[in-house]
Amino acid sequence: MCDIRINSDFWRRYLDIVRDRLIPYQWGVLTDQIVCSAPSHAVRNFKIAAGVMEGEFSGFVFQDSDLYKWLEAVGNALKLQKNPDLEDKADEIIGYIAGAQESDGYLNTYFQLKEPDKKWSNLLECHELYCAGHLLEAAVAYARGTGKDRLLGAACRLADCIDRVFGWEDGKLHGCPGHQEIELGLIKLYDWTGESRYLKLALYFLEVRGSNRFFEEEFERRGRISHWTKGPVEEPNRYYNQYPYTYYNQFHAPVRSQTKAVGHGVRAVYMYTAMAQAALRCGDEGLLSACRQLWENMVHKQMYLTGSIGATPSGEAFTRDYDLPNDTNYSETCASVGLIRFSMEMLRGEPDSRYGDVIEKALYNTILAGMAVDGNHFFYVNPMEAVPEICDANPERSHIKTVRQEWYSCACCPPNIARTITDIESLIYTVSGSRIFVHQYIGSRLETEQEEGTVRLSLEADFPWSGKTKLRVNGPDTFCGEIALRIPEWCTRYTLAVNGENKRLEDLDTERGYLIVKNIWKKGDCLEWNMEMEPRFVQADRRVFYNAGKAALIRGPLVYCIEEIDNGPYLYECRVDGACVPLEAWEEELGGYCSLSMPGVRYRGRTQEKLYDRVKIHKEKIRLKAVPYFLWNNRGRGEMATWMPLM
Amino acid sequence: MCDIRINSDFWRRYLDIVRDRLIPYQWGVLTDQIVCSAPSHAVRNFKIAAGVMEGEFSGFVFQDSDLYKWLEAVGNALKLQKNPDLEDKADEIIGYIAGAQESDGYLNTYFQLKEPDKKWSNLLECHELYCAGHLLEAAVAYARGTGKDRLLGAACRLADCIDRVFGWEDGKLHGCPGHQEIELGLIKLYDWTGESRYLKLALYFLEVRGSNRFFEEEFERRGRISHWTKGPVEEPNRYYNQYPYTYYNQFHAPVRSQTKAVGHGVRAVYMYTAMAQAALRCGDEGLLSACRQLWENMVHKQMYLTGSIGATPSGEAFTRDYDLPNDTNYSETCASVGLIRFSMEMLRGEPDSRYGDVIEKALYNTILAGMAVDGNHFFYVNPMEAVPEICDANPERSHIKTVRQEWYSCACCPPNIARTITDIESLIYTVSGSRIFVHQYIGSRLETEQEEGTVRLSLEADFPWSGKTKLRVNGPDTFCGEIALRIPEWCTRYTLAVNGENKRLEDLDTERGYLIVKNIWKKGDCLEWNMEMEPRFVQADRRVFYNAGKAALIRGPLVYCIEEIDNGPYLYECRVDGACVPLEAWEEELGGYCSLSMPGVRYRGRTQEKLYDRVKIHKEKIRLKAVPYFLWNNRGRGEMATWMPLM
Repeated sequence: MCDIRINSDFWRRYLDIVRDRLIPYQWGVLTDQIVCSAPSHAVRNFKIAAGVMEGEFSGFVFQDSDLYKWLEAVGNALKLQKNPDLEDKADEIIGYIAGAQESDGYLNTYFQLKEPDKKWSNLLECHELYCAGHLLEAAVAYARGTGKDRLLGAACRLADCIDRVFGWEDGKLHGCPGHQEIELGLIKLYDWTGESRYLKLALYFLEVRGSNRFFEEEFERRGRISHWTKGPVEEPNRYYNQYPYTYYNQFHAPVRSQTKAVGHGVRAVYMYTAMAQAALRCGDEGLLSACRQLWENMVHKQMYLTGSIGATPSGEAFTRDYDLPNDTNYSETCASVGLIRFSMEMLRGEPDSRYGDVIEKALYNTILAGMAVDGNHFFYVNPMEAVPEICDANPERSHIKTVRQEWYSCACCPPNIARTITDIESLIYTVSGSRIFVHQYIGSRLETEQEEGTVRLSLEADFPWSGKTKLRVNGPDTFCGEIALRIPEWCTRYTLAVNGENKRLEDLDTERGYLIVKNIWKKGDCLEWNMEMEPRFVQADRRVFYNAGKAALIRGPLVYCIEEIDNGPYLYECRVDGACVPLEAWEEELGGYCSLSMPGVRYRGRTQEKLYDRVKIHKEKIRLKAVPYFLWNNRGRGEMATWMPLM
Repeated sequence: MCDIRINSDFWRRYLDIVRDRLIPYQWGVLTDQIVCSAPSHAVRNFKIAAGVMEGEFSGFVFQDSDLYKWLEAVGNALKLQKNPDLEDKADEIIGYIAGAQESDGYLNTYFQLKEPDKKWSNLLECHELYCAGHLLEAAVAYARGTGKDRLLGAACRLADCIDRVFGWEDGKLHGCPGHQEIELGLIKLYDWTGESRYLKLALYFLEVRGSNRFFEEEFERRGRISHWTKGPVEEPNRYYNQYPYTYYNQFHAPVRSQTKAVGHGVRAVYMYTAMAQAALRCGDEGLLSACRQLWENMVHKQMYLTGSIGATPSGEAFTRDYDLPNDTNYSETCASVGLIRFSMEMLRGEPDSRYGDVIEKALYNTILAGMAVDGNHFFYVNPMEAVPEICDANPERSHIKTVRQEWYSCACCPPNIARTITDIESLIYTVSGSRIFVHQYIGSRLETEQEEGTVRLSLEADFPWSGKTKLRVNGPDTFCGEIALRIPEWCTRYTLAVNGENKRLEDLDTERGYLIVKNIWKKGDCLEWNMEMEPRFVQADRRVFYNAGKAALIRGPLVYCIEEIDNGPYLYECRVDGACVPLEAWEEELGGYCSLSMPGVRYRGRTQEKLYDRVKIHKEKIRLKAVPYFLWNNRGRGEMATWMPLM
């Protein structure tokens, strides 16, 4: 095991935001002290179920999960730093949760309060196992963060209850969840408790999926009634795009036969993550091979430059290879949370810099874009370009908000951001024997046990603004081992110095994108690892029709965008020179960032009397200013574009 | 009254297609002898209702209207040319219709066969008055085309029935239709029969709309059940975009207070047409003023270059000013049928070349694009650009078909095309006193009564390929009058010669876009009216964000497009020089057309290993070939674009 502490200024700021603003804000929402579009009622539902309050359930069928995700973030935060007040609040809520649990371990306030005779009768639509999975994840995080096991006990009882209900054995239900998540919870619970039944049950949920007609059978059993319409429907599931309905929840085929990312994005990546976890824990090469294919398909054919996924709001889903529209995409923040987890699991199994590259892309672009710098406004959908007037008016684009919202009635993304940021340290290092991998250049300290004693490293970095990093060995006096440094995809020139002496790179090994530095390290050794971080323009594969003749600007891991506030309205008129070298400038606003500026041409149109008139374009030389995409829309509402036509 | 005969080669060909292929094909579909996606059952429903066949109703609640629209086209076609076989078929069907009518005049096979106790209980959703309106239109057309009045009798009985049920008086229902159309039928019936009750009833339906809460009240009366979901719903109507639900069917305000085109496109233009008709017949300047505002808003802020309307498939609706996406638009063929009718009514009220311009745009681009040259494949949706792979995969674009379909289960467009083309002569001329207006340059003969006797004119034109036209006076020996020639918006240079002698244009009056030629005309006089028709590029108002930096190519009334078959795949990589003069060439295929070719540049992308990679665009000089938009997709499936980036 490793012990990792963050000291990056960049990430400390985000951790502070999450701790000081996001977590308290979410507590306010969940306890109905802050009301946004509608009261959350999440805590209230548990109080009612626990018998300490009168009332009726309200909210979505998956309302419980909002609270669980918050508790997971709290567990993560308390691991980083004690906070008695927050812990008291959490403990009080955990009391309601424990109080609400039934004697057989069952726990789901929707069904307990609203449809107690309908438990486990609509797995496809009703999120019972999904909520349970989030409880399990929260319980482990909370136990790890506080050493307390009350929530863990509830989680184990619920897991045991589920284990009695589901499985291959006769007399059990042969179903699986409509929204994957229980698999992740069970494997986390297995990792924490060592109870192999939980791993076995997770495997069952993965393997049963797509192997039978359970969802169709339960649909007939419940009289073809849909939870959502409350009336009879033709098919058990929503029709998804060009695919049969089985694709939406990925039960179109047994999971190990799946090769392309399809259906609802979040469901997909949660499942792939669990598949990778299960494959590693069971040494299941066949399952791992499916994971590789799914990852490759998603990353190389269905992922946006910002590390986001989901080309359509219809089913919040994948569409097909190379279909990546910029102005109608979904790119849900939660889906990128799942993409990071999936990539991290793959990386644990087989270190390869490409996994770290994707994590970096998703983290620094989509996850951070999902939250305003004020810590309490959020994007659910992350477009590649947007015009506020269009998003207000056009239904194919109206899922794109051009102001971050305070909260959502379906509030999956804000707590997902919180639990991801509070667990950021888990993405930085892995240790394999005497090889210490550095995956993410996030300033931090690592302690890990080696034969020679506790190895202590510190990483200093001003990432993502600079590619200059220092890695110091703080102990023990000597140890023999390798340090493996990820060479990011965006980095084409780099240098390494050890104790001030430049290394000849040709003397060093690289393995799957990592520079391997072997040594007998001594306390006080210092590696200076400098990754050149020059801005540059990228183009998409031409099969991405939407980006024909266009380029996007990146610098290091960051995707840049142009905004109306800097460049005036009618941004789409602006073109860029893909060969220019943009100028960097440090801006103090929004916590500080590096802006880029460059020459461009504006094909200035007219507001004309006739809607259509003879061409009379005025080409105008301009300078364009670009800012990191993750900061867009923090300075007011306006147009934004990432892909720009080339001059 | 005028008598007009078409002799344009161009339009004769379309009339032949409609007569020889479309009308027989539709007869085959309506009688279930041709089955496309699903059997139509339209005739069968009438046979069952008439008691000559056993069975149950099937099809949409508005299935009857398919048959009525076909009968209207047949009536139009029989007026142009006798056809005993077709007339026999129609008469047989009219027998079933008459047989199905109830003794009180009620006629609607859905309600008669399926929900006889629910008549007039769901005006918002159930299209009873809509179907009735189409019967009335068909009956007049059939009476005019054949002199037979059996269908007309049925229509009058139904109109009388409706008159007994609806109106301002106590004891009558104070409702109006969810889909406007009855207003058009009633006014047509009034024009034909002179029965003022029908005009009064049409006025009632217009005036009551948006003036009360009838739709909400009937919603409560029927227990909030939706016809479409068969279950209870929250609101009486579908939520439309950013607007309240009242906008979808234009009952958000009394019609004379409406100033912007909103909601479902077809419903809107049908209503505006009826408003214009009513305003003219009643001399209602207030109503006409609303029509003018609606027309201006639609045409100058919400219309595509091709004369199509409806920016979104969501509600097949308008969105808001200047929101005109090219790849997700709706642009329903039927909506352009309505736009033509509305513009023609406005033109009858106040001749202005702008009305004729819009009719020309919609007719030569959208209406003709709606049908393949084979006469039995159709577009419902007319995109401004399309990539087949994208339309297959992406739900926001999947309403766009990239192959014309044989038929649709909701088969509104094909018969609407048929009835429009068979009535094409009604768009060409109007006569006001001794002034004869020529609105459309469609080769034809006109006979109209003037003081001096029957004035006979013939118009020779090779339109839309050439702007050279000849207008000959064939009789009487002399007459004193004015010929008013529409100066099309696209025409900036023109000449006029009378009997071989060029006229000085400054000696001639123009009035609201018409050149007025006064004369004492003699038999044999000939006007040579030459409108220069050079290809040129146009740009959109810059508030149409989607067209920033782009141009479209037009020649005369025709919008051009580039297609994959001529220019290779990845069309969006191609840019054009907006200042070039494209070369014209005559092509023999597809009935003959003028193609245009021009220099361009292709920003050639790569199919690359990485989805995103360093910019390396290869700019390549190319020649682009463009074809008339209305002919797109007649030579196989492929990419198409109208708006092209400028070089």
